[in-house]
Amino acid sequence: MEPKHPKDSKTIVTDLVLPSETNPLNNLFGGELLARMDRAASIAARRHSRRIVVTASVNHVAFKKTIPLGSVVTVEANISRAFKSSMEVILDVWIEDRESGVRSKANDAIYTFVAVDDGGSPIGVPPLEPETKIEKIRYEAALRRKQLSLVLAGKMDPKDATELKALFE
Amino acid sequence: MEPKHPKDSKTIVTDLVLPSETNPLNNLFGGELLARMDRAASIAARRHSRRIVVTASVNHVAFKKTIPLGSVVTVEANISRAFKSSMEVILDVWIEDRESGVRSKANDAIYTFVAVDDGGSPIGVPPLEPETKIEKIRYEAALRRKQLSLVLAGKMDPKDATELKALFE
Amino acid sequence: MEPKHPKDSKTIVTDLVLPSETNPLNNLFGGELLARMDRAASIAARRHSRRIVVTASVNHVAFKKTIPLGSVVTVEANISRAFKSSMEVILDVWIEDRESGVRSKANDAIYTFVAVDDGGSPIGVPPLEPETKIEKIRYEAALRRKQLSLVLAGKMDPKDATELKALFE
Amino acid sequence: MEPKHPKDSKTIVTDLVLPSETNPLNNLFGGELLARMDRAASIAARRHSRRIVVTASVNHVAFKKTIPLGSVVTVEANISRAFKSSMEVILDVWIEDRESGVRSKANDAIYTFVAVDDGGSPIGVPPLEPETKIEKIRYEAALRRKQLSLVLAGKMDPKDATELKALFE
Amino acid sequence: MEPKHPKDSKTIVTDLVLPSETNPLNNLFGGELLARMDRAASIAARRHSRRIVVTASVNHVAFKKTIPLGSVVTVEANISRAFKSSMEVILDVWIEDRESGVRSKANDAIYTFVAVDDGGSPIGVPPLEPETKIEKIRYEAALRRKQLSLVLAGKMDPKDATELKALFE
Amino acid sequence: MEPKHPKDSKTIVTDLVLPSETNPLNNLFGGELLARMDRAASIAARRHSRRIVVTASVNHVAFKKTIPLGSVVTVEANISRAFKSSMEVILDVWIEDRESGVRSKANDAIYTFVAVDDGGSPIGVPPLEPETKIEKIRYEAALRRKQLSLVLAGKMDPKDATELKALFE
Repeated sequence: MEPKHPKDSKTIVTDLVLPSETNPLNNLFGGELLARMDRAASIAARRHSRRIVVTASVNHVAFKKTIPLGSVVTVEANISRAFKSSMEVILDVWIEDRESGVRSKANDAIYTFVAVDDGGSPIGVPPLEPETKIEKIRYEAALRRKQLSLVLAGKMDPKDATELKALFE
Repeated sequence: MEPKHPKDSKTIVTDLVLPSETNPLNNLFGGELLARMDRAASIAARRHSRRIVVTASVNHVAFKKTIPLGSVVTVEANISRAFKSSMEVILDVWIEDRESGVRSKANDAIYTFVAVDDGGSPIGVPPLEPETKIEKIRYEAALRRKQLSLVLAGKMDPKDATELKALFE
Repeated sequence: MEPKHPKDSKTIVTDLVLPSETNPLNNLFGGELLARMDRAASIAARRHSRRIVVTASVNHVAFKKTIPLGSVVTVEANISRAFKSSMEVILDVWIEDRESGVRSKANDAIYTFVAVDDGGSPIGVPPLEPETKIEKIRYEAALRRKQLSLVLAGKMDPKDATELKALFE
Repeated sequence: MEPKHPKDSKTIVTDLVLPSETNPLNNLFGGELLARMDRAASIAARRHSRRIVVTASVNHVAFKKTIPLGSVVTVEANISRAFKSSMEVILDVWIEDRESGVRSKANDAIYTFVAVDDGGSPIGVPPLEPETKIEKIRYEAALRRKQLSLVLAGKMDPKDATELKALFE
Repeated sequence: MEPKHPKDSKTIVTDLVLPSETNPLNNLFGGELLARMDRAASIAARRHSRRIVVTASVNHVAFKKTIPLGSVVTVEANISRAFKSSMEVILDVWIEDRESGVRSKANDAIYTFVAVDDGGSPIGVPPLEPETKIEKIRYEAALRRKQLSLVLAGKMDPKDATELKALFE
Repeated sequence: MEPKHPKDSKTIVTDLVLPSETNPLNNLFGGELLARMDRAASIAARRHSRRIVVTASVNHVAFKKTIPLGSVVTVEANISRAFKSSMEVILDVWIEDRESGVRSKANDAIYTFVAVDDGGSPIGVPPLEPETKIEKIRYEAALRRKQLSLVLAGKMDPKDATELKALFE
């Protein structure tokens, strides 16, 4: 399959925070943000693969900043690396201040999706070719995360995770 | 504060999978499951702390098994360890076959919540005292995960994460 | 069919009260609680029968206590008696105070479900064998309610409803 | 307060049955219908009293006819009798066949609402004056149901429920 | 096909405004009202044609009056004219003051629906025969709007839109 | 106020079509698309004005192409012209074929929003300065639509709507 670029599948979902999505402090529920990010990421993975895609895993997500009721929230999803049938998707979440218009980073997260055929079996996806500097950095880091994931799942011997091991030396 | 036991805050959320929550393969959307787990975990954390709680992070979640339309899904949330103002919550997700009644494990996940006061500032929570064998194992593992989280966030030198480091030796 | 016990199908649904579910006094809408109880009861009836189940009737429900926005509400559904193809389900609804952790009874209700085959025709269900004292009391009372239901529907002569008649003597 | 007529508060809610509101047989969930009837009844009670109203009780509801996906469902709510601060509301539910246009009765139910002030305390409502023959029949029957409700709640001695008692003699 | 009258398909949808449907000023979102009107209009068009119907166009809609949280909103849909396979539907939106009971007009709009067969192709509908004075006025105006619509879509030469042209002379 | 460019407020909302949003032909409900376009347009108007905004009117919308269940739908909102306190927003709706990746135009629409202060009174907004060719064309056309709107509302004599009149000569 011909390689694709991150910009071919980039997905932007902009929406408001409504009262039914907020906790008692009037901020967006963590679970609601997880679901929004999943939808944006699934669209990006589907655009890259042109297949049905299913969520395979969610990487460690830290909620750095609360998102108040009435905020405009923008979720940007970019494929960071494609493996055999899986794709890593990086989510960047921005909120903007209504009065000043200033945008600030509220969150980021990493989801992995698998492309499947109509019967639900994994199927190959095109490789990803990063173009910009940030795309290349994320592309490299994706390999280390893949190794960590395999180690934690008991599918790779930690001693073989050479790139990951370097972190602890 | 007096310590509490996991059973004091154990939370069970049982519900059906409806058509509007499914992907094109007629299985529950990953994002919808993430949101359900967040709600169950937040109730457990609130029961342990008797405070308003907010999602602080979601650990690596792997979606092992698809959950078909019409399934009965049970999400069980148990506090595995309490830190100063944060609580780690382990989620176990079960589905049951309507005809045989057999329950099978569909997923598990780990969320961390922080207790906050009415202004949103972190506030202390009671310690957790594990009782059963599985509770004790999860209690110990929670410390390693906390270290990994601090290392990944750049707030702890990997060399000081003694328990975690052992994994790679 | 082999008899089953109430504990085999006991169902617990715990959830929060969100802003979109409240009336102008900021309490849970009666209709929303009726729908939540129906879902919990349908899961219990399905677990007992391992069949598709449909709501047949709702007994007299009194709303004793208002349930404020933000409450944690627990709906417990227990089968009280199984008839030929129908099952009576008793719902107990609890709310808990966030600060004191005290649970209080907010409501109870009785729903009846019928098990059906794939074409929608009634089909037999296993008998229920009560074990605890409260289960036995509810099992006996279910018969009187069944008689009242038949009398009100004009399907039983009031004079034959011996257990029910005793109430008015 | 000046008496009002049933037609002054009559409420009609017409809507479709959507996929997310159906059970595995593709019929409207019982709980969803209970919630729709509650909304229609609450609007009628509010129109009669011009007050905030809360659901006090739901009378015995029998689901006579399944309501398939895609149906047009009409819920008509009529006040049948007003007491001191409560109102009995009768719901008639109709579905219509898309091709023949034939309307058929799918369900009926009886809800009771209480008018409250801004603090949630019961407050008086205008009396209801029935006009048509069916309104008068329902008005009389409402008294018997009120008595049954008081008896079942242990607030009236069955021997004093003269109208109700006659049923069993 | 035999002609039908507007009253044969008149549709009334009454409902409350909930918190999740309001903007930061606590009024009903414009988009939510557009969706409610579409549902009411589609039911009226379906009743007139006894066919599946799809939205073809929305005429110029002006939002004249804000609709506050908690309002009772009544949407009335009436077919104003039937063409070959399309139907023009006029929507009148009323809100009522809870305390005084006074109804006031909040909005009106015009939608056009097309009746289709199971494959989605347009199919003929019965003619509409207006009866009351207002129905006759709306019936006449519908033709001018049809012409404007054809002109704006480039499907009719403005010079041929005789009724419309008169407006500008 | 300093002028702004269309790109400063451009808003992109990408989302899937779910089962609960479809009609009996499994296509997106017209009303649901109207609501999605309103949300996208309101965010663009809010970004341009940095104020609370409310929907003032919806121009004639024609539904050209059905949008099937499971489609990825992209709604793009661009401010076409700013008046004293109102803004015209043009919506372009695209759907993409999952297998070929081909994007096709499904719909377009024009909404007008008004910026308001916290009390709901209209308040001035920055002028819009079009940059690209298509932005300039839309900017000019906006004036003709404004005139048509005023004529239809009886607030402008058709003879004074010079630009509009030219259309019919």
